Amino acid sequence: VRVAPKLAGEGRRVVVTGAGGYVGHQAVDQLLALGCEVHTLAREDSNIAGVHVHRADLLTDGDLTWQLAAIGADTLLHCAWSVAPGRFWTDPANIDWVAASLRLFRAFVSSGGRRIVGVGSCAEYDWTGSPFVEKGSPIRPSTLYGNAKAALGGLLTSFARQESISAGWGRLFFLYGPREPRGKLVADAICTLIAGQRLATTPGLQRRDFMHVEDAGRALALLALSGVEGPVNIASGVCVPVRRLIERIEILTRTSELVDYGARAPAPGDPPELAANIVRARDELGFVPRFNIDDGLADTVDWWIKKLGVRTDAERA
Amino acid sequence: VRVAPKLAGEGRRVVVTGAGGYVGHQAVDQLLALGCEVHTLAREDSNIAGVHVHRADLLTDGDLTWQLAAIGADTLLHCAWSVAPGRFWTDPANIDWVAASLRLFRAFVSSGGRRIVGVGSCAEYDWTGSPFVEKGSPIRPSTLYGNAKAALGGLLTSFARQESISAGWGRLFFLYGPREPRGKLVADAICTLIAGQRLATTPGLQRRDFMHVEDAGRALALLALSGVEGPVNIASGVCVPVRRLIERIEILTRTSELVDYGARAPAPGDPPELAANIVRARDELGFVPRFNIDDGLADTVDWWIKKLGVRTDAERA
Repeated sequence: VRVAPKLAGEGRRVVVTGAGGYVGHQAVDQLLALGCEVHTLAREDSNIAGVHVHRADLLTDGDLTWQLAAIGADTLLHCAWSVAPGRFWTDPANIDWVAASLRLFRAFVSSGGRRIVGVGSCAEYDWTGSPFVEKGSPIRPSTLYGNAKAALGGLLTSFARQESISAGWGRLFFLYGPREPRGKLVADAICTLIAGQRLATTPGLQRRDFMHVEDAGRALALLALSGVEGPVNIASGVCVPVRRLIERIEILTRTSELVDYGARAPAPGDPPELAANIVRARDELGFVPRFNIDDGLADTVDWWIKKLGVRTDAERA
Repeated sequence: VRVAPKLAGEGRRVVVTGAGGYVGHQAVDQLLALGCEVHTLAREDSNIAGVHVHRADLLTDGDLTWQLAAIGADTLLHCAWSVAPGRFWTDPANIDWVAASLRLFRAFVSSGGRRIVGVGSCAEYDWTGSPFVEKGSPIRPSTLYGNAKAALGGLLTSFARQESISAGWGRLFFLYGPREPRGKLVADAICTLIAGQRLATTPGLQRRDFMHVEDAGRALALLALSGVEGPVNIASGVCVPVRRLIERIEILTRTSELVDYGARAPAPGDPPELAANIVRARDELGFVPRFNIDDGLADTVDWWIKKLGVRTDAERA
């Protein structure tokens, strides 16, 4: 008789906010694969495979304590936020999301919850200090988004210590992958090149840590199920020039000479490097990314080709 | 014909939250004296002389934009907070007040408001770094209260910059004065000694900046009416051992030998000195405290004697 090994999430009931979103969706898939029972709070009726959906509006509803108590989850993974491409850095809705998140955390603890994980950002760090380490790199955000995430992360840590609950804070770096909204670098590059249109970019010399969104979701799921306290960088650990990504996308989309490198000036003050130290995620979560940049971009281009209904060379042949 | 000089607050309409509170009350008096039209939002029907009272609950009400728009104030001075003596350092309600304050700031700007002043605390600073200067002293709060104030102050500054409005942040140090709640050092010492009871205290060697609450209210009023941006220490600029206060209260209450200095141990980690640099308030607000510690305590003891109905020696004679 063979007994199936127990999964890390068996017997765990987790509430995930933003479960239909770009990152939340991936975190949900990973939590389900790890054996968790997953619940979500959603503004609209929605159907997410395998997830118990409860109607709630985090921004406008009153006290959610009783609704959360009825769910009875031990863990909250809070992915919901306002992240409209291009606008989220300066969006005053960042203020609303800090307020809504604090109300959610309070209600979750009042409902009996014992573990909260929130989603932070590399934008919390002082961007002149790359590479960034969770304990040591100064926090000095330059945007409203970065300030909102830094303030919320600091408050969550302090609140959890005071209430003797457990709290983790996953700082995401740069993401790409299936379902990325248009208006973001990789999604726009792929769609533009698939359509055979010209792409105007910066010289692309700035180096960034880009991670496949599925890896990000898995790291957040592991963080939620762990007892790791405080901030954890969630990144690939590999920092590449943006041009390296675009060149790979050119190859994957079988285009050439369509990209005008340098046609756009880099944003003023754009730092040359934003790299993550990922020792904490590796050692304390046992997290290792599954995708390198080449395979991750191949997976992403495949997804867009399917979504856009583009016929590949093989199909056309 | 003599023309009265224009007052600094003439033509200014200011909303003050917490207008019935210990500090807010003093700020209101000063704003009225400076010629402002003062409005407040209050949970309960209340009568504050000279103030327009509007019913609202900052913690539980929905969007306050329309109510604030009907008031049409240019300036918000936000004094309301949960400050139960002894409990406020660790009170989870600090989280609720950050959320409520952010919602209030958003609503005030949406209503057309152009200037927001919030109330911060010396508890935001890294307490090993006394004396504290607004620009330069590191922010490293060790309590939930300090974290909440630091997070809110940082977010207010960032939000205001993004929305092109003006924002100031008054960091209060240690206060004493009329209407101080029982459970606080000076109020308890005065009431205990007036009653002829024994007072158990620490050796009292720790040095603190103590300010008369009327001075604090005036500094906040000046800050509200100014265009000064960011944090401003609101303190007396004089740092004295706590024992110096108690000895003065012994003299003012005509008691002796009732205080057991050293009967209580100092709180673990209590820093030897918490001193404020007040150059910014002096130079940019033109603020000079009216009370020194001796006169301020005399004023406070007088107030308690009246309130408690204690007959003075002269009356008894």
